[in-house]
Amino acid sequence: MSKQSDEFSAQREALNDIILNRDDINIKRFFALDGAVYRDGALSAKTKELLGLSASLVLRCDDCISYHVIQAHKNGVTDQEFDEVMSIGLVVGGSITIPHIRRAYKLWTGLSE
Amino acid sequence: MSKQSDEFSAQREALNDIILNRDDINIKRFFALDGAVYRDGALSAKTKELLGLSASLVLRCDDCISYHVIQAHKNGVTDQEFDEVMSIGLVVGGSITIPHIRRAYKLWTGLSE
Amino acid sequence: MSKQSDEFSAQREALNDIILNRDDINIKRFFALDGAVYRDGALSAKTKELLGLSASLVLRCDDCISYHVIQAHKNGVTDQEFDEVMSIGLVVGGSITIPHIRRAYKLWTGLSE
Amino acid sequence: MSKQSDEFSAQREALNDIILNRDDINIKRFFALDGAVYRDGALSAKTKELLGLSASLVLRCDDCISYHVIQAHKNGVTDQEFDEVMSIGLVVGGSITIPHIRRAYKLWTGLSE
Amino acid sequence: MSKQSDEFSAQREALNDIILNRDDINIKRFFALDGAVYRDGALSAKTKELLGLSASLVLRCDDCISYHVIQAHKNGVTDQEFDEVMSIGLVVGGSITIPHIRRAYKLWTGLSE
Amino acid sequence: MSKQSDEFSAQREALNDIILNRDDINIKRFFALDGAVYRDGALSAKTKELLGLSASLVLRCDDCISYHVIQAHKNGVTDQEFDEVMSIGLVVGGSITIPHIRRAYKLWTGLSE
Repeated sequence: MSKQSDEFSAQREALNDIILNRDDINIKRFFALDGAVYRDGALSAKTKELLGLSASLVLRCDDCISYHVIQAHKNGVTDQEFDEVMSIGLVVGGSITIPHIRRAYKLWTGLSE
Repeated sequence: MSKQSDEFSAQREALNDIILNRDDINIKRFFALDGAVYRDGALSAKTKELLGLSASLVLRCDDCISYHVIQAHKNGVTDQEFDEVMSIGLVVGGSITIPHIRRAYKLWTGLSE
Repeated sequence: MSKQSDEFSAQREALNDIILNRDDINIKRFFALDGAVYRDGALSAKTKELLGLSASLVLRCDDCISYHVIQAHKNGVTDQEFDEVMSIGLVVGGSITIPHIRRAYKLWTGLSE
Repeated sequence: MSKQSDEFSAQREALNDIILNRDDINIKRFFALDGAVYRDGALSAKTKELLGLSASLVLRCDDCISYHVIQAHKNGVTDQEFDEVMSIGLVVGGSITIPHIRRAYKLWTGLSE
Repeated sequence: MSKQSDEFSAQREALNDIILNRDDINIKRFFALDGAVYRDGALSAKTKELLGLSASLVLRCDDCISYHVIQAHKNGVTDQEFDEVMSIGLVVGGSITIPHIRRAYKLWTGLSE
Repeated sequence: MSKQSDEFSAQREALNDIILNRDDINIKRFFALDGAVYRDGALSAKTKELLGLSASLVLRCDDCISYHVIQAHKNGVTDQEFDEVMSIGLVVGGSITIPHIRRAYKLWTGLSE
């Protein structure tokens, strides 16, 4: 993993801890559900990460994109597969996704070095 | 195919014809690109339709959802796979996607009868 | 309740049944959570419906708005309180919320007759 | 003007009346402001309608698009100018704008007949 | 108030000054309206801040969220009330609100120390 | 040009290079199209930059806004014209555009010094 991805993951965990240390049961339930939908099922975990990535990209959520980029890399997504997900997100979401695609490629190429 | 899906496809074609009969080269290029990104590549056409479906769902574009639901059905997506795409879209995009998920399931169940 | 609101609620139930008759546990969990967050707590159910209404308004989800308008009416929201929620949504979300505000007022005034 | 555009304008007025008959001063102020920003200034009313049209298109607000399409037609926008606004909106906002572009062209071609 | 909140408020003021020193009357009017809708009325200023907070959260506007978090704290919102607003925003807007919820909790817990 | 605008443009180029050095033909085609729609046509390049700016503003894409602010300045847009575009974006997109308008004015005033 790259330095950029390690820092992202550490900060993400620290902030999640603040939320999950609260008493709100509904927020905890949502976080559990957010983990559950990406597990292996009829569709593989790899495909599900790509679905999460394309959804995050068109919604332009940088932290969500970074998370799914790292997960996609861990699940063995190839360079060409990554390009194809980016191209679908770009066509669906338009040129406003480009700044997010730039940052996604920067993270992805760092992971592959 | 169901009556609902046939009507949707016919109306979609008629309106596309209005646009493509204009002289604007950039709009024509975009439409060509919109077809190209969903073709078989490193990822299968089936997986790409699911990526288009999840992206359309979280962006809450009913016509886009309907199109990809029909394409997913043509590409052999199973009931359980469809459920899993809907569940990811629901968690990523929240309860505001529910009206669109309702209509997607209505179309999907009509296609399967 | 008005005819418009009765029809809306009946159709909503019918479509929810299609979804909840599927086997997907994660979608069922989301629906349960979607009910739970609006129950009386530190904030009253009435205030929570207004929070759901303002969030739905700025996200421009007509079905979500209709649902929360009906719930707000059931929870005793007054005309002036309704106006104030609409005005906040309008300023936060801009003129693109106006078509949704038009439909929300049509439903609201029908409920009050 | 076409039958479609006349019906749209009449319904829009009727629903605006419901809102403006309420006592909320802030909503009235917003409606006044919404009229003011499109008046002739350093930029012409025609250019401002095109700005409103492109903004409405990428935000995918059908009623807003219809309104600005009618206003653009009244302000003498040509077919080719209309195409160029649509092409910018399509590239900025992506394929999810296509259903709205289809309806915009249907209204526009009806106005020009 | 915390250091983080003081810095946010100072920077916000400085940038607002740039805008309000311009001559545009419509922008000034919008800013006046943006203040007016949150004042005590049929609904309390506290409830209105929570409406602004939930709307800002689902629209994922960090600066807007920060502003309403600070205002909510000034208006005596409790920890449990804050949790409930966050949980509604999370369910309505989905997992893409989580990065914003993380930052909102970081600011909120800083204010409470 | 200002230091802020030079740094923005350099970073943008560097990240675009990462993307365009990949082999994906569809992404390259989109980038070509993204350049083409802003060229002089029935509408002037200046008007097209303003259309891109208002669309970027209501979609709240900071990098897109910065790019079109710089292009607008290069194309001779005046202070008053800039104000009018901002005011339309503000009314269409609501108070959630304000943080982006603040940053747009900061960049614009830096360019004009």
